Amino acid sequence: MSIITLTTDFGLKDGNVGVMKGVMLGIAPGVQIVDLSHLIPPQNIQEAALILARSAPYFPPETIHVVVVDPGVGTSRRPIAARLGEQRFVGPDNGVITMLLEYAGKHGWPAEFVQLDQPRFWLPGVSHVFHGRDIFAPVAAHLANGQTLQSLGTSITDPVRLNLAQPERTLSGLRGEVIHIDHFGNVASNIREEHLAEWLDAPKRIVVQLGKNEVHGLVRTFGEGPVDELVALFGSTGNLIVSVVYGNAAETLGVKVGDDIEVKVERLEGC
Amino acid sequence: MSIITLTTDFGLKDGNVGVMKGVMLGIAPGVQIVDLSHLIPPQNIQEAALILARSAPYFPPETIHVVVVDPGVGTSRRPIAARLGEQRFVGPDNGVITMLLEYAGKHGWPAEFVQLDQPRFWLPGVSHVFHGRDIFAPVAAHLANGQTLQSLGTSITDPVRLNLAQPERTLSGLRGEVIHIDHFGNVASNIREEHLAEWLDAPKRIVVQLGKNEVHGLVRTFGEGPVDELVALFGSTGNLIVSVVYGNAAETLGVKVGDDIEVKVERLEGC
Amino acid sequence: MSIITLTTDFGLKDGNVGVMKGVMLGIAPGVQIVDLSHLIPPQNIQEAALILARSAPYFPPETIHVVVVDPGVGTSRRPIAARLGEQRFVGPDNGVITMLLEYAGKHGWPAEFVQLDQPRFWLPGVSHVFHGRDIFAPVAAHLANGQTLQSLGTSITDPVRLNLAQPERTLSGLRGEVIHIDHFGNVASNIREEHLAEWLDAPKRIVVQLGKNEVHGLVRTFGEGPVDELVALFGSTGNLIVSVVYGNAAETLGVKVGDDIEVKVERLEGC
Repeated sequence: MSIITLTTDFGLKDGNVGVMKGVMLGIAPGVQIVDLSHLIPPQNIQEAALILARSAPYFPPETIHVVVVDPGVGTSRRPIAARLGEQRFVGPDNGVITMLLEYAGKHGWPAEFVQLDQPRFWLPGVSHVFHGRDIFAPVAAHLANGQTLQSLGTSITDPVRLNLAQPERTLSGLRGEVIHIDHFGNVASNIREEHLAEWLDAPKRIVVQLGKNEVHGLVRTFGEGPVDELVALFGSTGNLIVSVVYGNAAETLGVKVGDDIEVKVERLEGC
Repeated sequence: MSIITLTTDFGLKDGNVGVMKGVMLGIAPGVQIVDLSHLIPPQNIQEAALILARSAPYFPPETIHVVVVDPGVGTSRRPIAARLGEQRFVGPDNGVITMLLEYAGKHGWPAEFVQLDQPRFWLPGVSHVFHGRDIFAPVAAHLANGQTLQSLGTSITDPVRLNLAQPERTLSGLRGEVIHIDHFGNVASNIREEHLAEWLDAPKRIVVQLGKNEVHGLVRTFGEGPVDELVALFGSTGNLIVSVVYGNAAETLGVKVGDDIEVKVERLEGC
Repeated sequence: MSIITLTTDFGLKDGNVGVMKGVMLGIAPGVQIVDLSHLIPPQNIQEAALILARSAPYFPPETIHVVVVDPGVGTSRRPIAARLGEQRFVGPDNGVITMLLEYAGKHGWPAEFVQLDQPRFWLPGVSHVFHGRDIFAPVAAHLANGQTLQSLGTSITDPVRLNLAQPERTLSGLRGEVIHIDHFGNVASNIREEHLAEWLDAPKRIVVQLGKNEVHGLVRTFGEGPVDELVALFGSTGNLIVSVVYGNAAETLGVKVGDDIEVKVERLEGC
């Protein structure tokens, strides 16, 4: 049976996620539904894009990922569906798919997109305020039932993409920015393992600078240091992370998404 | 396979919702369980009644809705089960079903109720403190397995109903009250689209008053206005809502459940 | 189909729980996954041990319980799997299984353990930082598919056990400690119903002391007293609890996990 994942900014208290599941189970009985996150900050498309891109590659082929972080609901923004390699997407055309598109590009996944324009696959009487329930949930369920992408709408080739900051070369290394702070307070940057490839033969010479704090050398895992020590390492999807051993780095350092983070390489004396 | 939904005030940290699911899956393997909300404020029967009534109509026929917001657990309040049209309910007889009963009444759904009094459908050794686990979860699972409502208990006709405030006519319009504040801070009232039917041909003349704030005219969706603007619109289940564009209306205005909200109609000059 | 439960300190916002579910559903399509808690305080092994032990006995035979509260991820701590009676466990060997082992011991459940050392049952390219995704999720899914415990690793007999405080006899009763504060603010102690067996024929003479507060007599359920009254009772798994009727005892009393709690028995005058 197909799998549908859900990512929203709906929170967990109001029952709206449950309503979407009710709609989907009515159309596709037995479909398996997995929550990715419903605590995306309200209207934060970039955060949703990040969670989706980190998570989708771990799902089996033909999984359908529904994202409803949709500040433009009921306006002229398009509802879309997409196939990216063996993964599928349903949601608003507002850039929430940007990072998964980047991942697809890097891995040579073919991509196709449709603008959803076939109301026979929607709930009757679509509201202006809850397309998650009225359009995206039923469309995802029809996809799970075997409808083709093409049957759901009209091909498009220009999905909206966010303009995401990329790390920049500096005289001594790289400058990137903080893109995510996780539940533990770990601070993740847009600097990735592959960006640092040329220096990774000497990880002890790498210096990470975050605000006024310098971390010398990289460790391999979170608990590799004394309690409360500031450490730097690569996270589970390859991003450079700053963490406090058994502590909360973001709180301790007062860091927020968008802050600068720099990587330098220490020169060896006399070389 | 049957679907069971769960609505509780248990929160998400203690494992009690999981325990109910374990009990249900032991009795009805393969049943599909959907969480509506476990963040109902402690003992807040009215909030649970609202979430249930808004959500249940979107589920397929024969879904079983279990609500455990149960300040009277272990006291003389009755455990009940009900059929309302094609939806079913299991939970305490404390009024939590009130708004779904109203909905059923409006839609001509037949209703029947039983007091649960057949311990052979309960866990052995029922505690005084956790009927969600010991009575409601097993009863719901036996319903999912095909037991009839009548086999689970004795017919009753007087389920407890909350005395809910209804909007009142004023000289210039309607006075209602705030009944829900959602995760986004949107403020929902008990004034519904049908209450305003006679004025909806001129939605620009409708004025919504909430505390000291007046909103002139209705919009169709949340993003229809400049950022931070106060707007009024109908929510996804037809209630009049006050919202701040990309903001949090309840926080901005200092509104809470129970506050007054008024709707007036502006007279046209010279008419 | 098998059931897998998940208990972590991952929180709900970052998608990491969803990723584990994606991995499991890829290996064991159709497996039923139940969340116990993802709000274990970061790195709090004792809290995870408590939630697991309270919940696991309510699940059907052959359920697989995965716990990822794992401050030592990527260090030398062993990954393990276990059979305890008819329940199964997969997670780090850091004591998180301690209270379930105690429960198993009391109930005469046979126990066996293996150190996971067969990478063919793991994701390729195991990270140092996310064994929940890379080792525990795939191992649990292979168990659900019918792999034997022995095929997954090498037998061990010395799983790590936490050194948990036990209640102590005093001149007038028992001294224990607070081990859990639930979502409602109820304060649970390590003093259990069986510890007080000899005095339970006169529950009105039992006095519970928590800080400067004394509660005289035990009640049977939470709502059994006037609003805001302090009451003592046994919780749904047999632990002595202090509660405020329709209130939050932990906040009202300023109690935290680890605080002392005492039980005394009042002497009858003239006896």
